[in-house]
Amino acid sequence: LITIGNELLIGKILNTNMCFLAKAVTDLGGNVTRATTVRDDVDEISSAINEALNRKTDFIIACGGLGPTFDDKTLEAFSKAIDRPLELNEVALEYLKERYRRRYGDNPREKFELTSSRLKMVRLPRSATPLRNPVGSAPGVYVKHRETVIVALPGVPEEMQAIFEQSVVPLIRELVGNIFRSEGSLKVTGLGESKVAPLIDTVMLTSPNVYIKSHPRHGQGPTLELHLSIVSESEDVAKNSVKRAMEELSRLVADNGGEVELMKT
Amino acid sequence: LITIGNELLIGKILNTNMCFLAKAVTDLGGNVTRATTVRDDVDEISSAINEALNRKTDFIIACGGLGPTFDDKTLEAFSKAIDRPLELNEVALEYLKERYRRRYGDNPREKFELTSSRLKMVRLPRSATPLRNPVGSAPGVYVKHRETVIVALPGVPEEMQAIFEQSVVPLIRELVGNIFRSEGSLKVTGLGESKVAPLIDTVMLTSPNVYIKSHPRHGQGPTLELHLSIVSESEDVAKNSVKRAMEELSRLVADNGGEVELMKT
Repeated sequence: LITIGNELLIGKILNTNMCFLAKAVTDLGGNVTRATTVRDDVDEISSAINEALNRKTDFIIACGGLGPTFDDKTLEAFSKAIDRPLELNEVALEYLKERYRRRYGDNPREKFELTSSRLKMVRLPRSATPLRNPVGSAPGVYVKHRETVIVALPGVPEEMQAIFEQSVVPLIRELVGNIFRSEGSLKVTGLGESKVAPLIDTVMLTSPNVYIKSHPRHGQGPTLELHLSIVSESEDVAKNSVKRAMEELSRLVADNGGEVELMKT
Repeated sequence: LITIGNELLIGKILNTNMCFLAKAVTDLGGNVTRATTVRDDVDEISSAINEALNRKTDFIIACGGLGPTFDDKTLEAFSKAIDRPLELNEVALEYLKERYRRRYGDNPREKFELTSSRLKMVRLPRSATPLRNPVGSAPGVYVKHRETVIVALPGVPEEMQAIFEQSVVPLIRELVGNIFRSEGSLKVTGLGESKVAPLIDTVMLTSPNVYIKSHPRHGQGPTLELHLSIVSESEDVAKNSVKRAMEELSRLVADNGGEVELMKT
């Protein structure tokens, strides 16, 4: 995942787009290996795309910088990273005109003009496919580059999410196939992280496919949240493995004097 | 900025630590050039540190993975990235004992034992300096490696923030010197981004040091937030430049039929 925008690097806003995308990809059975945030700068964006390509990532999702203003630089960076020139994309232009008609109808005072700001949104890397934006102007962009799928989405959350649901979910499903994910959480009180750590190690040995992570929480006395998760090609295996690991872990914590509470997931 | 944790890459939680650090560094006059999120994996963490070192970053802040459990891998990754072995750090051990005494007093039933989980938190890369954790167990870590300062902080927000305020702020001030930052925001309604873009370009020409960014917002009709910012060695220059640019931009927007409203910053 690559999120783009100065406002993220000055801490003006929380990176909710990254969180949404990470959760959505994970829920589809994908594995988000890295998330990078760069500023609105052609070299920074293209170097982030290149680094992901060099890591042989299957799927790159870039988010932000597709709009009409001078600081929207993702298409230029995209073109640079994969070395394909920007060209007017007729399908993208048609999407933009469609959007304009939806907004202004046939009002003769609001005739569509291909201003330089609008042209900017529809000049895509050669042989890229635009992804229809059902709630805004800037289309998303899809390119297959060697073995990697690259998708660019606008940074406005409503637009990013709409394009993601409509066009990116099917692409991820195609790549991931049927993968099932199961997870569960336990709240442990009365035992510090140092005492719970060896208990987790024990359960990880008997349930090697279940990933367990502990998160210290502030509370009255030592408080931990334990998060268990697994992905499997079998829905039954996924569910049963997490269930079994949670039972074993609960028993061990209780045996060592801690209190366990099942958390909603 | 490097934030570490699987929970971030599965979208379980928002990356509030990254936002806090980005804002705090920016407010001190620093320039956050990149933010990377990696999972709890020694190779991933050390490669993120190495990439930042290769970019000749002045200052790297890593956050997360300093606790006692098996999935806390930052110290091992840190050691690998800068090629210095992990060694028991006596000062870090003293900090840990101090913390234990604060928590349990002299209760003879709670005598401090250097368990393997605790030992893990105080084995630091050779010649690293521990940073006292005023609200938790795991100390932060400071290393100067060639020209780069590297700091590692725990991921529990209260602990990260406490160590940051106490130990990292002075390090950043020393590097940045006295830099002043000024910013302001305008809300523009009634003009679309495509129409406002050339107005921004005009102001960027007359106020080249002021950075202006537009953020589309959902509202009744076209709504934009324009964010102006500058850093300068002179507080007067910083304030006056943003003020002048905001006035000029407001005038241009009004001249073109839009409405402007000053936003609190």
